[in-house]
Order: sequence, then C-alpha cells, then structure tokens
Amino acid sequence: MAMKHLISIDDAQINLLLNRASLIENKKIYLDHSRKILCNLFYEPSTRTSSSFASAMYKLGGKVISINDVNYSSVAKGENLEDTIRTMGTFCDAIVLRSRTAGEAARAAFVSEVPVINAGDGNGEHPTQTLADLYTIHKEFERLDNLTVTFVGDIENGRTVHSLDKALPDCEKHFIDTFDKSIWPASDVYYLTRVQKERGSEGSYRMRKEHIQHIPENAIVMHPFPRNEEIPTWFDNDPRARYFQQMRNGLIMRMAVLADIFSNEK
Amino acid sequence: MAMKHLISIDDAQINLLLNRASLIENKKIYLDHSRKILCNLFYEPSTRTSSSFASAMYKLGGKVISINDVNYSSVAKGENLEDTIRTMGTFCDAIVLRSRTAGEAARAAFVSEVPVINAGDGNGEHPTQTLADLYTIHKEFERLDNLTVTFVGDIENGRTVHSLDKALPDCEKHFIDTFDKSIWPASDVYYLTRVQKERGSEGSYRMRKEHIQHIPENAIVMHPFPRNEEIPTWFDNDPRARYFQQMRNGLIMRMAVLADIFSNEK
Amino acid sequence: MAMKHLISIDDAQINLLLNRASLIENKKIYLDHSRKILCNLFYEPSTRTSSSFASAMYKLGGKVISINDVNYSSVAKGENLEDTIRTMGTFCDAIVLRSRTAGEAARAAFVSEVPVINAGDGNGEHPTQTLADLYTIHKEFERLDNLTVTFVGDIENGRTVHSLDKALPDCEKHFIDTFDKSIWPASDVYYLTRVQKERGSEGSYRMRKEHIQHIPENAIVMHPFPRNEEIPTWFDNDPRARYFQQMRNGLIMRMAVLADIFSNEK
Repeated sequence: MAMKHLISIDDAQINLLLNRASLIENKKIYLDHSRKILCNLFYEPSTRTSSSFASAMYKLGGKVISINDVNYSSVAKGENLEDTIRTMGTFCDAIVLRSRTAGEAARAAFVSEVPVINAGDGNGEHPTQTLADLYTIHKEFERLDNLTVTFVGDIENGRTVHSLDKALPDCEKHFIDTFDKSIWPASDVYYLTRVQKERGSEGSYRMRKEHIQHIPENAIVMHPFPRNEEIPTWFDNDPRARYFQQMRNGLIMRMAVLADIFSNEK
Repeated sequence: MAMKHLISIDDAQINLLLNRASLIENKKIYLDHSRKILCNLFYEPSTRTSSSFASAMYKLGGKVISINDVNYSSVAKGENLEDTIRTMGTFCDAIVLRSRTAGEAARAAFVSEVPVINAGDGNGEHPTQTLADLYTIHKEFERLDNLTVTFVGDIENGRTVHSLDKALPDCEKHFIDTFDKSIWPASDVYYLTRVQKERGSEGSYRMRKEHIQHIPENAIVMHPFPRNEEIPTWFDNDPRARYFQQMRNGLIMRMAVLADIFSNEK
Repeated sequence: MAMKHLISIDDAQINLLLNRASLIENKKIYLDHSRKILCNLFYEPSTRTSSSFASAMYKLGGKVISINDVNYSSVAKGENLEDTIRTMGTFCDAIVLRSRTAGEAARAAFVSEVPVINAGDGNGEHPTQTLADLYTIHKEFERLDNLTVTFVGDIENGRTVHSLDKALPDCEKHFIDTFDKSIWPASDVYYLTRVQKERGSEGSYRMRKEHIQHIPENAIVMHPFPRNEEIPTWFDNDPRARYFQQMRNGLIMRMAVLADIFSNEK
C-alpha cells in the first residue's frame, strides 16, 4: 500500500522507499509518469527544494507547475490555505507544499483531493530531507542502527536535526552546539548544520583541522546545505565528504516518493 | 474554421467549444500537441489563471513558458507591448496575455504572428472565464436559454458578471449588489462575486442561512474565485455548490480553446 | 569534438555551429533530448534570453528549470556561486548562467560537473548573442569576411558590439556613437544598439529618414533588442529590417549550441 500523503516521516515506509530509491539509482526500474502534473506550491521560496522536486518529476517524465512565492501571487489574495489547495489540486496530480507554520501541511492534506507532500512546514517537518539523509547513511553503512551519529551546529533550531534524530532510534547520538570544542567524539556520521552568524564571532562556526583529524577514516560528513562557513571548501574533495552526494540522494529519494504516491492510483 | 485569436467572447464559436470541451471531459478525443509551446505572459500576476492554462497545455502534451510578472522582468524594460508580443511570439506557438488595460489584448493580436488568448485585459474581457461559466451552466441544464440567473456581489465592477450577462441574452437576469437583502429571487443559477471589503461592514458580504433556504433544490451556486467571505466554507459540501467544478470546467474549456486554436495550422 | 562549456565566443567552433543551425532551421536534422533538463540560472532577470533558451530546449524535446532572479531566491542565501552551481548541477544536465560580473561564468565552469553556457556575465561576454548575430549575417551574405559593418549607438558600453567586432576580424568596421550624424557610411550591415536616455535629448537617439535613405538596398539593419527609440516601428516592414529574424535566429542558434553540448556525452 502506497502513501496517500507524506506529511510526517511517520507516513513513510522507510525500508520500501530506501529500496525503491536504490532501484531507481541503479536503473533497475524505469518509471514513466509523462501525463502527470506536479505543483510546487511554496509559501516561502526554497529554490533548492523546489528545483529538486522539479528535477525528480521531470526525470519521471512528468510536468511541473512552479509557484515559488505564493504570498506575492494572486492565488493567496484574501484566500485561505484550504481554498488554495483545492484550487491547485484541480490543476495537478500532486502538491509539494512549503509553508511557514507547523501543521499547515496536515491542514492541506485534510482537504486536498490530490496527494500532498510536505516540503517543510515552519519548524515542523521536512520528511523528504530526512529520507534523503537516511538514504545517504544507509548507502554507506547498509544499516540504520548501531551507528554513532554526531550532530554539530544549531541543534536547538535545526528541523533537520530533530527529524533525523527521531528517525534513528537505534543509534548512539551526540549533540554539539558549538564549533569551539576542538575534539569531536569518534562517530560514523558527522551531521553539520548551519549556524546563525548573529550568535557570535565568525571563526567559531567553522570545522577546523583539529576537528577533522579526529574524524575516522570510514566516517562521513553530511550537511543539508546551504552552508555558510561550517565546512571549508577545501574539504569538498576529502573522501569523507558526502554533502554533494546527499543532495543527489535527495533527488533520487524524491523520485522514489513521487513514484510511490503515483502508484497509489487505479 | 477555428479561431485565430480569442480576444472577446464574440470571437468564440460557443457551441463548438462546449461540444469540444464535453468530448475532452468524457475522453472521447485524445489530443497531442507535444511539440507546441505556450507562453503565459502576465503583466499582473494571476496564479490561478496562469496555472489553469499551464495545466491545460500540459494535458495536451505541450510545453509552457511562464512570465508571471512582466513589469518586474526585463522583457518590458523600456519596451512597448507590440515589441514584447513579437518577441515572445518568436519563442512560442500561442500567447496567453493578462494585461492591465482594456484593449491591450486586441492591440497584441493586431501585431502578433501567433494566436493571442485574452486572459483578462483590465476591466475589459476574460473570455475563457466566461466560457468556463457557460460550460458549467450548460452541463447542468443542457441549455443556455430560458434560465433565471441571479448575480450577487460587486455588480458594477465585475468583469465576469458583465461578460456572462452579455453571453446569456436569452435568460432572465437579476442583479443584487448587496448581501443584506435576505430574500433572493428563485433562480436556476446564483452567480456570486467578490465584494471589496472597503465598501462596508464585513458581515454583510456573506451568503447566510436565510439566503440559502430560498435557493431551489435544483439550482446551482457559482463563484469565479477567489472568494472572501461571500460563501461560507460549510456550504462547500452542499449539493448546489458548483464553484470547485466551475474551476475544473475552466481547465477543460481552456484545453478546448487551445486545441481549437492549434487546429488552425496547416 | 563538441564544446564542454560555452563561456566565450572563443570556445565556439563557429563554422560547425552555423552549419548545424542551418540544418536545424531547414529541418534536415531532427533532435530529441527529451530526458535532458536545462537549468536557467539568472542572477539578474532577462526574460528575453531566458525564454529563448527555454524555447530552444523545449524544441529539442527537453525540460527546463527556470530560476529567474537568484538574488531573491533561497539558493543564494549566504551561498557562494560555486556551491549554487554544484547544487543546480545535481538537478540538471546543463546550466545557462546570467551573472552580474565578468569572469563569473568561467568561475562557474571551473567547478561545474555539467556544461555551463554563459548567457551574459556583466560587461564580459554573451556568446550565444554573438553567434545569433553571426548566423544572421552569414544567412544573408553567405560569408563573414569582406563585409562592411557599421555599429551605431552605445559603442563604449555595448557588450554585444565588442563581441561581434571581435568575431568579425576580416570585415571593415565603422563605429558611430551618435544618431546626430546624418550620413552613415555605405555598409552591408548596420548594427544598432540601445542608447541610455540619460546621455542627452531624446530626439537624437532615433534612426531618421536621412539615415535610412543612405542605407543600401541590399544592406540589413540589426538590433539585439530591446529597443528604445533607436528604430522607429514604421521601419519594421522595411525589407532591410532584420531584427525580428535576428531574434528567431537566436533561438535556432541556441538549439544548435544545446545540441552540440549534449552530443558530448557518451
């Protein structure tokens, strides 16, 4: 049974999606949804996420209607979220929704006649990011348990950190909210996130040589991007860097999610 | 003979388009215009109309270039409408034009080498909206004459009201520019439109129970959307509500219009 | 050997591209790149250029992700050009880049894993405009040497003028930076460009009857558009006017460039 909506990571059958993503990546299945239309409905702009979904849909053969800043567009002119969702649902086969407030994706799904995929609802969830992260880890270690994961950066406000933490219940986790601490615990995964520069001096938000020398050889370094100075660009060619692959994995996982959702239809 | 341009409802062969829309809706014809490119050229944003045309074009297999706010884009940098039209006509097979001033769509058609579809020219016309309205009424009553139609809302400034009124010469019409009047005349169609809130207190712009109890069982309630408070959301599930269907009919009618226009070519 | 990137006109095999454009225009070859995705990444808006590339890509059967004002979009949020390029390169098969500063296209190509096409980098180059100009001249005269070319308008700041000048080493060239001079030298090509109105009175930026009467019968008048008052609209139907054809040639040349770049892949 495929998903109807993807609002929370709890809606996702993770193993099924990891497997499907792997089949797609290794070209073991060919998908064609050339008569399907996806709507990217973004109440705040996120070119990265919007482009990733657009590319995923195109790679499935489909079409995309992109509304990249609903607030400045007429669809929202005195209109409640529910009417906008039902309107756009008339024109497309699935809606990718980026909204400003936690819970709005669930509200949208409640009235929508087409599947809704949550692409971030304020400080709520962003399940396809979490799935991309899980796929990246699983490709590396062939499991999602018995791993040590160290989160570094803005732990408190990090939506991606909270969601990934929740999705890895059987791992050992460390949380470090500063780059000042020069020794990071030995881990399989280092998950760095953006730090607001307003919180202090610039230098302290950068992964430095003294951190890197403690990162084990077989560990991986992830970052949901965009980055500020957390990771110096000279590290990009380090064999432990996985953030660009992580982005590519996000694309493949979004293909898997869309294919799953479209497979639902008779 | 198909239309060259669709500037005014007078350009449309209404019966032919109603028939073609019905064939499309009932999947009696399959259309493929996969090598055609449509340009949405919007001098003021209207995501709803733009998305409806984009979806229609995609469902015909075609491609879409969307320019959603020409005023902020470089195409208009010191450029007159005619040059912009001739430029965009170089890149596409038809232009959907939303402009600010009545008569601009006709000016565009005059110089354009590709068909121009008027998607609203200021307080002029918006013929595909009118065609969508006619299709909605025709689907319900199987005729466009000998019906009673009551227009409620902003009658004076309502472009959609004027156009639909003109397109229904053989119907009996009532015009009510307030929601305060608690008894509405018995009618087949109630066509509500948005009221500017600036004109008075909020409460008076809402269809209330005392209105609804006088709406006959077989009547339909339409609204070109977006709505403010004119129609309470609890009415959405009422069997007389037709505004979401009206939106879907708009999509089908736009497919019919595009197919008609493309059939013109050798 | 096809191009990897197109940053400067020096990267282009001009004869090969002129020939390929001609084959495309005369429908001697049919190209299908329906699984390819192009990204229009515009750091400043240019609807004309963006639409021309989108149309070219659509005519090759492909798909387009359009980011029309990166500065206002989240992709650039504290992100350097290199990260944005590598991010977008994850989602597409080629990037068309419009940037603000000379040299940025080369910087982008340096890190990009997909081909980069320079669609104007500040006062640097805009090679597909130059190729479109060359194609227009070549179609007319069947050669690119032994021609007399007169440039009129903003010579000093005209990126298109500099590039075309450089690309026609074996022609005789005249440069006129005012419209006041009433006699223009006899030439094969008159290449007019936009003049900033701030530089003086309006009247002096218009091609007038006394200029036109000296333009030989077999000469052509070009303009990269948009125009202000440099060319009066009544001249549009003159048999010597080539600026609308020039725009159409730009579309065909962009098809040739994209096809060349995609032919590079195994």
